[in-house]
Amino acid sequence: MTDTIISSATKEVVIGFDRPFVMIGERINPTGRKLLAAEMKEGNFERVIADAVAQVAGGAHMLDVNAGIPLADEPALLAKAIELVQSVTDVPLSIDSSIIEALEAGCAVYQGKPLINSVTGEDEQMERVLPLVKKYGAAVVAISNDETGISEDPDVRFEVARKIVNRAADYGIPSSDVVVDPLVMPIGALGQAGQQVFRLLRRLQTELKVNTTCGASNVSFGLPERHAITGTFLAMAISNGMTSAIMNPLHDDVKRAVKAADVLAGHDQDCGTWIATYREGGDANAADAGSGPRRRGGRRARVEG
Amino acid sequence: MTDTIISSATKEVVIGFDRPFVMIGERINPTGRKLLAAEMKEGNFERVIADAVAQVAGGAHMLDVNAGIPLADEPALLAKAIELVQSVTDVPLSIDSSIIEALEAGCAVYQGKPLINSVTGEDEQMERVLPLVKKYGAAVVAISNDETGISEDPDVRFEVARKIVNRAADYGIPSSDVVVDPLVMPIGALGQAGQQVFRLLRRLQTELKVNTTCGASNVSFGLPERHAITGTFLAMAISNGMTSAIMNPLHDDVKRAVKAADVLAGHDQDCGTWIATYREGGDANAADAGSGPRRRGGRRARVEG
Repeated sequence: MTDTIISSATKEVVIGFDRPFVMIGERINPTGRKLLAAEMKEGNFERVIADAVAQVAGGAHMLDVNAGIPLADEPALLAKAIELVQSVTDVPLSIDSSIIEALEAGCAVYQGKPLINSVTGEDEQMERVLPLVKKYGAAVVAISNDETGISEDPDVRFEVARKIVNRAADYGIPSSDVVVDPLVMPIGALGQAGQQVFRLLRRLQTELKVNTTCGASNVSFGLPERHAITGTFLAMAISNGMTSAIMNPLHDDVKRAVKAADVLAGHDQDCGTWIATYREGGDANAADAGSGPRRRGGRRARVEG
Repeated sequence: MTDTIISSATKEVVIGFDRPFVMIGERINPTGRKLLAAEMKEGNFERVIADAVAQVAGGAHMLDVNAGIPLADEPALLAKAIELVQSVTDVPLSIDSSIIEALEAGCAVYQGKPLINSVTGEDEQMERVLPLVKKYGAAVVAISNDETGISEDPDVRFEVARKIVNRAADYGIPSSDVVVDPLVMPIGALGQAGQQVFRLLRRLQTELKVNTTCGASNVSFGLPERHAITGTFLAMAISNGMTSAIMNPLHDDVKRAVKAADVLAGHDQDCGTWIATYREGGDANAADAGSGPRRRGGRRARVEG
């Protein structure tokens, strides 16, 4: 199956169908974080560094880095953030911007093979971003919308994804370096958002055979107990073929659902990671998170009938 | 799509692909519960009644009732348990025994249309149980194993399920009254157990078009933090077409995963049940179960890119 390799100077991460799900930390992003935005704009990156270290400690395999601040010099800020994050962690990065000059500035300072986030199916976008992907030997997040917007029909989104993969091939970029984002809408606003994405994920896995990612937090926008919705969404998405997500590894509910889904998808050999993380004493935080009295061992486990 | 109707004297439950997942309470079962077994054997059903009331209060749509106690008069105990449970709750029941005389005794006293749990694909079993299903106009749980045991190949299990559905048809039982149990093995012992079941569930939904159930707790046997594994398993199973499960509705982690999966599968209209259950003040127990500081509203929700 398809493996997408992303690297830092010293570390490789492989996104693939038969592998543990890749968690890409979402925190380094000033969108909606006023304090972080103000600090970054002033050249204060302490919170960026703290967020990087905390997310890696929380289990992030990669980090997304975004410096999208209105009226700021985004290319300079993004390059600076990437240099600093790479100086304190060794995980590979996703370079996240909608501005081509910022992606270029980020790639120019990046050590390793980055994930460029993102390109859409709009012709002008593809013509500007794909040469950059090729130039830096990067992988790229392909978002399944185009000039006509975001279709509610997963089959239309599939065709947009296919178009981007084909266009990338024209630039000499293999489909293994294209990671498709099926676009996850808030389920509270669009009740079919989950079913749409699950159908699209199955087609992307079986027909286009590409790896996938998404901004996972979106799905639970506006709902109570939203981490449970996000975590459950990720587990269901993994069951339908999703191989990575931009998410918050510091939310225990969300991370636990991903790790459990790895076990159930057969991607955690002998449940090794699960047992190491959640056995008593393994991770006090996680082990305490269960509710109600717990029965040890398997007293009540049985085959029905 | 296929609807399976189960009823008590006053209440109907419908198991179906486009409907909220049906939770069948698993607690009334002396297997591995020494105290309950001893009490039931002595004719003390106080704990049975308490378990019935608690599970319905916890959200169970149906209850499984099992009286399998070694060296006891199981037919008499099962009939008594069913009468008592029907006297304190109005949810439909699953009559659970491997002994035909106990199933018969349970059906004889049951008010409504029960779910008989279960028949396997063994010829002798089918010849004894299916006439009972027909006689009482019941639905039946069909377990996908036969004389050759439980195959690890989901396609072999699918053929066993098909055999039972066909045999049931010979007795005049429609496929909508056959609820297939794909047989969930412990993931800690069999790493492919999840993938096997998910594949089988997809075939059962798309080809045989039958509803499905399982003993969900089995999957997490022997693992730490097992409710998270069970809940995540159910969410992934729902995503692959499972429509009911025999489970513990008193475990908040498990129930929350099922309710979140209903939202994400598009089976919770306008997220009505989710919001009513988990909004602040809606259900204090559930609302408190999240971990870490929570952000209200959607400050950080965004579309990636």
